[in-house]
Amino acid sequence: MQAELAISAMAASSNTILNTTSDAKDTLRSPKFSKFKVAMCQLSVTTDKNINLNHACNSIKMAAEQGAKLVMLPEMWNCSYSTDCFAKYAEDFDDEIASPTFSMLSEIASCHKITIVGGSIPEWSDNRLYNTCCVFGPDGKLKAKHRKMHLFDIDIKGGISFKESNIIAAGEKPTIVDTEVGRIGLGICHDIRFPELAMFYRAKGAHLICYPGAFNLSTGELLWELEQRARAVDNQLYVATCSPSRDSTGDYTIWGHSTLVGPFGEIIATAGHEETILIGEIDYSAIQFQRKNLPLEKHKREDIYQLIDLSQKML
Amino acid sequence: MQAELAISAMAASSNTILNTTSDAKDTLRSPKFSKFKVAMCQLSVTTDKNINLNHACNSIKMAAEQGAKLVMLPEMWNCSYSTDCFAKYAEDFDDEIASPTFSMLSEIASCHKITIVGGSIPEWSDNRLYNTCCVFGPDGKLKAKHRKMHLFDIDIKGGISFKESNIIAAGEKPTIVDTEVGRIGLGICHDIRFPELAMFYRAKGAHLICYPGAFNLSTGELLWELEQRARAVDNQLYVATCSPSRDSTGDYTIWGHSTLVGPFGEIIATAGHEETILIGEIDYSAIQFQRKNLPLEKHKREDIYQLIDLSQKML
Repeated sequence: MQAELAISAMAASSNTILNTTSDAKDTLRSPKFSKFKVAMCQLSVTTDKNINLNHACNSIKMAAEQGAKLVMLPEMWNCSYSTDCFAKYAEDFDDEIASPTFSMLSEIASCHKITIVGGSIPEWSDNRLYNTCCVFGPDGKLKAKHRKMHLFDIDIKGGISFKESNIIAAGEKPTIVDTEVGRIGLGICHDIRFPELAMFYRAKGAHLICYPGAFNLSTGELLWELEQRARAVDNQLYVATCSPSRDSTGDYTIWGHSTLVGPFGEIIATAGHEETILIGEIDYSAIQFQRKNLPLEKHKREDIYQLIDLSQKML
Repeated sequence: MQAELAISAMAASSNTILNTTSDAKDTLRSPKFSKFKVAMCQLSVTTDKNINLNHACNSIKMAAEQGAKLVMLPEMWNCSYSTDCFAKYAEDFDDEIASPTFSMLSEIASCHKITIVGGSIPEWSDNRLYNTCCVFGPDGKLKAKHRKMHLFDIDIKGGISFKESNIIAAGEKPTIVDTEVGRIGLGICHDIRFPELAMFYRAKGAHLICYPGAFNLSTGELLWELEQRARAVDNQLYVATCSPSRDSTGDYTIWGHSTLVGPFGEIIATAGHEETILIGEIDYSAIQFQRKNLPLEKHKREDIYQLIDLSQKML
C-alpha cells in the first residue's frame, strides 16, 4: 500500500536533477491543514514491549486531546536502543498478528483522526531487519514507510563503539509523502547528517522533514540542534525531531531534546531530556515568506553543481 | 597566473561525480604546515581607501609577528560595504599601477613569508565588476582568485533590501588552492549558504574552507555561526570566517564575529563585533581523527544521490 501512496523515487523515469530553479519546484501544494499543532512524544522506553506500546498509545491520545493534528514518536521506541534487542522486538508488517505496534498506530490514528509519524521500530522483511518509520493517515491507513538509509557505524578508540550495519539493513530510497498536514520528508537519526537527503526533500516540495532520532550524549550536545537548524535554514522548511527521553542505565545514553525548527532556523519548541509531550505550532505561510524574502533556490548555481537523484535505478 | 596554479574545475575532463567514496578522495595531502596559527583580521573599514590599506597592512604585520602562517582578511575591506562604493574602489589586477590593494597584499605576504587569504575587494575585469578574493603565497605570488559565486539579493518588505547582482557579476567556478598551510577552498559571504559548494571542496580534498563575509545583524545573529559549524561538521574539515568589525553609521550594519571552527563543529576561536586580530590554532590531524572515528564519506549513499560538478562546461 505504501508503494502506491508514497511519492517515492519510483515515479522518476530517468536520473533527475534535484536542484532545478524552475518555478514548479518552488510551488508548494496547500495541504488540508497549513497551520496546526504538532506533538513530539519524547517517550521513556523500557525493555518491556507491551509497556512501551501502552505508554505510546496513552501519549498519542494525550497529544491528540491537546489538539495536535500531527503526532510524532521517537526512533526505536518499542524496544531498548540496543542492537541485541532489535531482532527480538521486530515486526513483519505483512503479518497482522505479529505486528502489534503497527496495528496500534493504525488504530489510534483512525480513532483520533490524526496523522502519525510513527518514530521507528525494527521491521522484519524478506529475512532482513530494517529501522523503519511508518506514517499513518487519519483513516488509519499506512501512507508511507521509510527505512533508515544511512546506518550509524562509529568506532572511537576508548569511547563509543556502535555498528548498526552489523544487524540492520539500509533502506534504498528517500521517502516523501503527502498528508493532511503537508508534504513530509522522512529521515531517521543518522540520516540527518547528510545534507543531500534534506536537499532532495526540498526539491520535491516538502514542507516539513521529520527525523525521529536517538543521538547519544556526545553527538547530541554538539550536533543535534545544529543539524536540525542547518537542514531547516538551508532548505527553508520546517524540521521536527523526536527522541526517546534519557535513560542512563543502558550502554547507550540518549540525548533527548526533541525539537521543532522553523524555516529560518528558529527554534519553535524544544524539550529537555525528561519524558514529555512537546507541542509546537507550525504555520507553512512562514515558508513562502522566507523564500520570497530570500530566494535561496534561485541563488543556487545549478549551472555549476547539480544534485542528482539515482534512487529509481534500484527500484 | 592564478589559472595555472589554482586547482580549478578546468582540470576535469567531463562532468565529475563529487561525492565518491573512493579512498583517493579521502586521502588528504600533507602540506608544509599541518599545525599552525591562523589570524583573522577583523578590520574596521572606513570610506578612505588609503586608510583601509595602511590599516590592513599593519594588522597583517601584527598577525605575522604573533606567529600566524595564514592571515585572512574580511569581505570588502578596502571600501565601504555599499553597492555605491564598489565601482569607485575596484581594481584591475592586470594593471599594476591601478591595483594598490593587490600590490600591498603581494608585498606583505612576501615580506613576512606567509600565506594571505586576502578577504575580498571589488575587481574590474572585462568591464565587469566582481567581488573577488585573492590568495597570495609566501613568495608574494598570486596563487588563486575566487569570485563570489552566489550573489546576495534580499528584499524584505519594511526591512532590509540589498541587491548585489545589480552591480556585481557572479563568479563562474569554485576555487580550491594548494598552499603551504593546506588545501584551501574559497567562498565569499553568501557562498556559505550553499552546502553544495562546501561539499565540492570536501570532495576535492580541502583541509580548510575560508569564507570572508559581512553578514548583517539579523542574519548574523541567527545564521553566521550556524552555517560555519554546519559546513565544518558535515564535511569534517576546518572553516574560517573573517568579517569587518561593526560600523553602525552606514545603511548596512555588519555582524562581526570572525570565527574558526574545527572538523567536529567545535568553535576554536571567535571574536566579538569590535576590531580585533583573532588568532586560532589549526591542527589537521583532527580531520583524520574525525573521519576515522565516523567515516561520513563512506556512509554517504552515492548509489541514491550524487553531486555533480558542471563547472568545466563554461570554461
